[in-house]
Amino acid sequence: MNTKSLIIADQIFNSRLFVGTGKYASGTVMRESIEASGSEMVTMAMKRVQLNGPDDGIINYLPRDRYQLLPNTSGVRDAKEAVFAAHLAREALQTNWLKLEIHPDPKYLLPDPVETLAAAEELVKAGFIVLPYVHADPVLCKRLEEVGVAAVMPLGAPIGTNLGLETRRFLEIIIDQANVPVVVDAGLGAPSHAAEAMEMGADAVLVNTALATAADPVKMGLAFKMAVEAGRIAFESGKAVSRQIEAEASSPLTAFLDS
Amino acid sequence: MNTKSLIIADQIFNSRLFVGTGKYASGTVMRESIEASGSEMVTMAMKRVQLNGPDDGIINYLPRDRYQLLPNTSGVRDAKEAVFAAHLAREALQTNWLKLEIHPDPKYLLPDPVETLAAAEELVKAGFIVLPYVHADPVLCKRLEEVGVAAVMPLGAPIGTNLGLETRRFLEIIIDQANVPVVVDAGLGAPSHAAEAMEMGADAVLVNTALATAADPVKMGLAFKMAVEAGRIAFESGKAVSRQIEAEASSPLTAFLDS
Amino acid sequence: MNTKSLIIADQIFNSRLFVGTGKYASGTVMRESIEASGSEMVTMAMKRVQLNGPDDGIINYLPRDRYQLLPNTSGVRDAKEAVFAAHLAREALQTNWLKLEIHPDPKYLLPDPVETLAAAEELVKAGFIVLPYVHADPVLCKRLEEVGVAAVMPLGAPIGTNLGLETRRFLEIIIDQANVPVVVDAGLGAPSHAAEAMEMGADAVLVNTALATAADPVKMGLAFKMAVEAGRIAFESGKAVSRQIEAEASSPLTAFLDS
Amino acid sequence: MNTKSLIIADQIFNSRLFVGTGKYASGTVMRESIEASGSEMVTMAMKRVQLNGPDDGIINYLPRDRYQLLPNTSGVRDAKEAVFAAHLAREALQTNWLKLEIHPDPKYLLPDPVETLAAAEELVKAGFIVLPYVHADPVLCKRLEEVGVAAVMPLGAPIGTNLGLETRRFLEIIIDQANVPVVVDAGLGAPSHAAEAMEMGADAVLVNTALATAADPVKMGLAFKMAVEAGRIAFESGKAVSRQIEAEASSPLTAFLDS
Repeated sequence: MNTKSLIIADQIFNSRLFVGTGKYASGTVMRESIEASGSEMVTMAMKRVQLNGPDDGIINYLPRDRYQLLPNTSGVRDAKEAVFAAHLAREALQTNWLKLEIHPDPKYLLPDPVETLAAAEELVKAGFIVLPYVHADPVLCKRLEEVGVAAVMPLGAPIGTNLGLETRRFLEIIIDQANVPVVVDAGLGAPSHAAEAMEMGADAVLVNTALATAADPVKMGLAFKMAVEAGRIAFESGKAVSRQIEAEASSPLTAFLDS
Repeated sequence: MNTKSLIIADQIFNSRLFVGTGKYASGTVMRESIEASGSEMVTMAMKRVQLNGPDDGIINYLPRDRYQLLPNTSGVRDAKEAVFAAHLAREALQTNWLKLEIHPDPKYLLPDPVETLAAAEELVKAGFIVLPYVHADPVLCKRLEEVGVAAVMPLGAPIGTNLGLETRRFLEIIIDQANVPVVVDAGLGAPSHAAEAMEMGADAVLVNTALATAADPVKMGLAFKMAVEAGRIAFESGKAVSRQIEAEASSPLTAFLDS
Repeated sequence: MNTKSLIIADQIFNSRLFVGTGKYASGTVMRESIEASGSEMVTMAMKRVQLNGPDDGIINYLPRDRYQLLPNTSGVRDAKEAVFAAHLAREALQTNWLKLEIHPDPKYLLPDPVETLAAAEELVKAGFIVLPYVHADPVLCKRLEEVGVAAVMPLGAPIGTNLGLETRRFLEIIIDQANVPVVVDAGLGAPSHAAEAMEMGADAVLVNTALATAADPVKMGLAFKMAVEAGRIAFESGKAVSRQIEAEASSPLTAFLDS
Repeated sequence: MNTKSLIIADQIFNSRLFVGTGKYASGTVMRESIEASGSEMVTMAMKRVQLNGPDDGIINYLPRDRYQLLPNTSGVRDAKEAVFAAHLAREALQTNWLKLEIHPDPKYLLPDPVETLAAAEELVKAGFIVLPYVHADPVLCKRLEEVGVAAVMPLGAPIGTNLGLETRRFLEIIIDQANVPVVVDAGLGAPSHAAEAMEMGADAVLVNTALATAADPVKMGLAFKMAVEAGRIAFESGKAVSRQIEAEASSPLTAFLDS
């Protein structure tokens, strides 16, 4: 299969599926699920890699030669906290890569557009490779691009809901306008959702809850892997367009009864 | 991968993707697309296998040891015509398998429930392995099951529209109630649609227009193959349930800023 | 307001909202809710009008000079039972009008297309004004029309679910093809659903659960009344068409900043 | 009907339908359509009220004792231009009311969250009654509320598309969290869309394209008026909840055939 690879910040990714590390039953299950998924980009909250005190050893499950670690700033509430967390993450994990997420509201965990833009600008200047998690807001995505983010990560639906591409119409616009990779993040609850995002032309997707909370996270890792690849191939194959209501037979009508 | 195989009428199918033969640019493209799809069940309108006069040689592209041929009665308008066409098909192709489709209306090509049930009953008695194409009507599907059809083929959307699972709610009921395989047919316009049907628990899907009219039908064949497998694996992995609106973080919130 | 009236079987209806009588907390609430709804067509299950034994007096709440009673055959499982029930209903209520509903399955209460067509044909011959409740099956609706039903009543969603127009695509075809009034029945859970059906060109809608189980059924009766009228007026006003994604300003862009 | 009135910035509105002034065929049609709609809040682009040169006299059609004029900043591209336009508008129309809209992109006309927040803060301080037009971004809406806007106007779909409530899930969150009125703006293409927004608990809706481009804008004005009222009444009546798929009969099943 000769699908073009994804490139972010000059790094090549053979997989267009990004994964998270939360909610898994154990480190072993997590490792096997992520292996099955084929992912090469793994995000984690900073708390999981605490330097002091007993950490959960998450890093041990994720060999650095295999995965690009993508620390995220989940839990911060404004740009200042985000910048602080980013520097901590860089030091702890020895990586410039950062998933920037700022959600002041603990109930819906939706991102703050204004703080995110401010933090992104500052972090880009400080040498970070910034991938901001944002609402599916086309104008915000363009502004983030202008300050130099490496990709944008608009949400499909509120995080953890498994609802799929509720923001479909806006993702289409974002993809149409983007000059950086678009990674659809949050809300993808099934392989079909991931496939749909890829068919629309998204460059990658990020999935966590749907993998980690499946009855069989390893098998589900494989399912998402295949769905993402299927969606990408379909995009490259020129997916047929939906047509309104008047049907057309797949087969020419038989004439043999009338002849 | 240890996915249970599909069995219809005691025959084992390793692929859960059924394909059609209409609308392809050439016989060669058709053959390559179907090969890429991994399908083992291929449907065709009887006109394509005309016995007299110059036929289009469609059969030559489909080796019998590789594909179960599934002649369909597309073009007939009532039970009587369908039964007549079925017998012709059996003789011409030397197979008992039959996709029964009766659509009196040339505009939308939607199936007739009453004629379909009557023809199905008669054809089952005459020894056919009958797979009827029907509206996503749960009661009709049960009645067809009662007269002995080998599978039911409810539609996802009007044929040729590529709209996807417009009949989602009713397919769920059909799948919940069925004691024979459920093959979602018509309207599947993208691999994500096929994956979704499989995630819901459909036993197989049939695709034609979306394959044959893709810019690259061969690559698209592969995309559908992978999507169908992904959807099936997800179904077996226990797909997570969609949750209403209140978000839950994938990652535990970081505490490091507050400590 | 000069909206054309609905005519079924030569009878004029000023309201395009049909209502049911089930699930109300009391006869008084039912009467007031129906009054508020402005409905002139009221359906009821035959059990509610039992001739022997203590009935619930439902008829007393529904003056005959104000409402066309539409007895329904809810509970019957095949054509034979339906025909029997229809004759009982005619005798009991002294009306030829009949909502024909046949659902053999007690779980989802979906209608049987084959039995419904058979019963409709027989009942039309016996002089009934037949309004069959059916799945949103365009071919079945045409066949019912051919045997002489006075209107067709396709469902929007499984009864009692309040899900709205899940069968939208098929209702569009039914409305496009129909030569008798189309009454969208079942599943309408909100005034917006009723308005949408009317905007699509439905001739009327039938609502029960959403009225009877509202916190305030009387106020909700008014809400449905207004929504149905609004939808009808919109249909007559030439509703604007949905356009795909590229926006167009409602207002001409201001030039004053550039000048 | 005893529906609670809408109050914004201490002003009472008897109508929850706001309208625009663009795209009408003539001033007379506009006036009649708006009259039919019952609206008391009318927005207009500043260009329409040009002080110098021949204006289109739009103001003459809109008596000040009947309508609250809501000048909008359509066409500006950043906060600075918006503030300038706002001051011009206040002077020209002698009103503090302002619909703040900033969309740097001429293709999709989607609002800029960062510029909008900055402009809103400054304009509130300058004594304006600010109603910002924004993406359906719950966090942004809270931040606008914190700087003192009088209401928030999240979009339902890209302006002019008539697609309805594409942002449904996010509007629910915005409404759930808001302490100021929520006015759903943009994309409402049919009365049913407006009714749905009101049923969800929106405080008002703004419609322009769907009115102005209807075949009969005056009749359509009435349709929207009724639909908005119907939706509001339904909200106050406690709309029944959608239930998943298992049906429940509206009428108790008849027992008479079994007895």
